[in-house]
Amino acid sequence: MNASGASEDKSELEQVPRIFVTGGSGNSYKAALVARQVGLGCAWTFVDVLAGETQRAPFLKVNPLGKVPYLVLPDGTGFGESNAIAWFLADGTKLMPCSSASRARAIQWMIFEQTRLEPFISPARFFTTIAPARRTECESEIPRWLENGSAGLSVLDAHLRTQDFMVENSYSVADIAVFGYVHLAEEGGFCLRDFPSVSRWISRVESQADYIPIRELLSPRGLAHVR
Amino acid sequence: MNASGASEDKSELEQVPRIFVTGGSGNSYKAALVARQVGLGCAWTFVDVLAGETQRAPFLKVNPLGKVPYLVLPDGTGFGESNAIAWFLADGTKLMPCSSASRARAIQWMIFEQTRLEPFISPARFFTTIAPARRTECESEIPRWLENGSAGLSVLDAHLRTQDFMVENSYSVADIAVFGYVHLAEEGGFCLRDFPSVSRWISRVESQADYIPIRELLSPRGLAHVR
Repeated sequence: MNASGASEDKSELEQVPRIFVTGGSGNSYKAALVARQVGLGCAWTFVDVLAGETQRAPFLKVNPLGKVPYLVLPDGTGFGESNAIAWFLADGTKLMPCSSASRARAIQWMIFEQTRLEPFISPARFFTTIAPARRTECESEIPRWLENGSAGLSVLDAHLRTQDFMVENSYSVADIAVFGYVHLAEEGGFCLRDFPSVSRWISRVESQADYIPIRELLSPRGLAHVR
Repeated sequence: MNASGASEDKSELEQVPRIFVTGGSGNSYKAALVARQVGLGCAWTFVDVLAGETQRAPFLKVNPLGKVPYLVLPDGTGFGESNAIAWFLADGTKLMPCSSASRARAIQWMIFEQTRLEPFISPARFFTTIAPARRTECESEIPRWLENGSAGLSVLDAHLRTQDFMVENSYSVADIAVFGYVHLAEEGGFCLRDFPSVSRWISRVESQADYIPIRELLSPRGLAHVR
């Protein structure tokens, strides 16, 4: 684990949340983008998933489930799940929907993302773009991932046909949660031209203030500005 | 679709949320139990999933995705996802955790439930207890469901070893979301004696004020008291 930036000391750790992330991950990116867009100071630690760091003692002491992203509060307690972390960082900011019904709709789409999109787009992308040398491990799974992920993208496309953003036409944490992997779908072999409303929404998200692309933001250098 | 109770009229439909549910469903039960425990009046419509009603025109007009539970607001708009519905009904009540961090933890566990528990417990239970005559359709899947669901139950058991309820030792919407299917796991062939902390937590949930078991509550007669 490599702490990002040079100015870390104990007192800082105790004042802001520390978020453990990994490079290239759509799930880790959600936390980084929310923090950036609401101007929230956080401490960041990079964990190298490909090198096995999430499964070794130092990180397992932080999160026994061995998963990133993971957020540790100043009181030392923590929690996981990318969309729960995004929600926490967005709470009380312009990215949180205003009404009870709109917050419930945001949760609806965050659960949809974790059950109908991310489980298919993320592994398809991993074995296609991140670790193509390991593609033989899962060759037989790929058609199912593409089929199920495309079914999820169709639902998303129908939703975005009549509105600009995920919840009530206002850009919110729900957009960032869904965007995290959807905008990377072509790296998994999905064809986003088949989903024109999704493609237009991706452009709208990319034109928001303080938007920074994943490769630029999710690095020690990029996150040096989000602290 | 059969509306529950006899006293339905148009004016009532426009004043309270209408929730479409199906008998026996752990996901539908979550909405019913939250509404019951916070004393919230709702209108209820039963949809017979086994008879194919969720895939036919009258219901598809309500929810084009053909899924229950589904909530329609007095303004005519609606949303799905059992845990989003439970969250909406719990918002502003004693079942909503108080702090920003505890609400994020509740969302963490609601997503965990939908990704690591429900996708395995629910189909295993369906083909074991609800529609055993159809078990041959998926015989080869059952070992994988039992293995993956048991892995999720192990994580849950470890969590509940050190605390009484899902989030910060206070009974909340997160308990109801996780309880929905977990307490039915034995009907799917899971052995809850292997998860003693989960078993003790189930008893704690069952001893809450206004707890009503699924078979009693999730029926037109049971829901006549939640309106």
